[in-house]
Amino acid sequence: MSDPRPIGVFDSGVGGLTVASALMRALSSESILYLGDTARLPYGTKSPHTVQRYTQRNLDFLLDRDVKAVVVACNTASALALGTAELAIPIWGVIEPGARVAVAEHRRRGRDPRRPIGVLATESTVRSDAYAHAIRRLDPEATVRSVACPLFVPLVEEGWTHDEVTRRVAERYLRPLLEEHADTLVLGCTHYPALRDVLEELVGPEVALVDSAESVADVVRTGLAEADLLSDGDTPPSHHLCVTDVEARFERIAAQLLPSSKATLELVEV
Amino acid sequence: MSDPRPIGVFDSGVGGLTVASALMRALSSESILYLGDTARLPYGTKSPHTVQRYTQRNLDFLLDRDVKAVVVACNTASALALGTAELAIPIWGVIEPGARVAVAEHRRRGRDPRRPIGVLATESTVRSDAYAHAIRRLDPEATVRSVACPLFVPLVEEGWTHDEVTRRVAERYLRPLLEEHADTLVLGCTHYPALRDVLEELVGPEVALVDSAESVADVVRTGLAEADLLSDGDTPPSHHLCVTDVEARFERIAAQLLPSSKATLELVEV
Repeated sequence: MSDPRPIGVFDSGVGGLTVASALMRALSSESILYLGDTARLPYGTKSPHTVQRYTQRNLDFLLDRDVKAVVVACNTASALALGTAELAIPIWGVIEPGARVAVAEHRRRGRDPRRPIGVLATESTVRSDAYAHAIRRLDPEATVRSVACPLFVPLVEEGWTHDEVTRRVAERYLRPLLEEHADTLVLGCTHYPALRDVLEELVGPEVALVDSAESVADVVRTGLAEADLLSDGDTPPSHHLCVTDVEARFERIAAQLLPSSKATLELVEV
Repeated sequence: MSDPRPIGVFDSGVGGLTVASALMRALSSESILYLGDTARLPYGTKSPHTVQRYTQRNLDFLLDRDVKAVVVACNTASALALGTAELAIPIWGVIEPGARVAVAEHRRRGRDPRRPIGVLATESTVRSDAYAHAIRRLDPEATVRSVACPLFVPLVEEGWTHDEVTRRVAERYLRPLLEEHADTLVLGCTHYPALRDVLEELVGPEVALVDSAESVADVVRTGLAEADLLSDGDTPPSHHLCVTDVEARFERIAAQLLPSSKATLELVEV
């Protein structure tokens, strides 16, 4: 059996392209249909009700386009809306894969219960406590400290990824985690890996920085194989990007994140 | 003739409450129906097409609620969508009133063409060049320098209005305006008046800081009188706030901005 239909990936904006890019590398026979809800971003400051409403609309859009499975690349949507989403095909978020890697890194560092796993995320993700729940399901003794970092997304979008201002903001957000000697830090928003250098400089090389995007591809590959939904690659894979608002910025960042991809871009109303 | 119907005020979020508050003070016999499109904010990073689409939906909502006139408190929507909006009742934006005050302040400071009028605004407002057009219509010799300040809104929303980080960000954004000795600065977004202290400290007391909210009430009063739409106050005025997403923050900021108002709050879908 082979299923050439695309995998749907959605995010509130452009950040989820890091997840799409990881999927393209790891599953090169698979077609990807990406949806960025750029007209209504950000999700990270909005209520569960609104995030759930928008997530369901995005899922319905992807289903109408006949995807065989969906990856919710947005941490906020994964945290708030995965439980309420209605979908008759496999769906994966980024919280569970991120929690898995965090717990593995915490174990590798001695699993000291006095040293917490830190989670950096949007306000809504932090309020949902989704990472803490997912981590404690895997390691009930782990201590989790979540910190909302609402300025990180705008700083990344401003392009100040290696900047003195960003370093000061990061310093302030990370202070409680540094004081408690966190041994692992989850980058709980698709924008945050762009700040890896600044964060690494602050926490030092012995603290693990966990990017969910990297581990999602494994989860998706296993899940597709189990559901007998993998493509055998006989049909050449396609990469198509849909956005609800077109800004020059999206095309620029898409070109950076997907340099070798011949992805096509389409403006859609969701 | 007296018309007791409310004046509709809309903004992408909570910032427009400063305009609503100014209207309540200046026109105490008038009822106000406020709409904050908090589910889809911010507008300032989005394309003209999307801002126009959302603005028209908001106007239709206010019209359904039988307002007699509309004030677009959002600078971005005023800049991008006032020209395309379809409405059979009077509508006013904040660009024109702001430009009027800026030109008056520039004149009061000697109207030196080598000293520009500076405009601080969102990316979309700056790209539209709406303030420059409005200012040059009033004073064709004025030089206008517009600067996009995308980090100001998130800094205000984080509550860092009197903060070293904010001072550094402001310093960077204002550098070109300081170098050119701007004599007047338009605060071209409803969030920016919250940064007045930081900005004043940077530019010094001789530079005028112009807040559109303050002058809109005059324009509305004159406009309502001309159209014979003023209320005589026989009906007690009501203040009602509608939002498309409810966040704890909105209620807190609303309580701060409208301390004496018995405004009621309603979650709506637009």
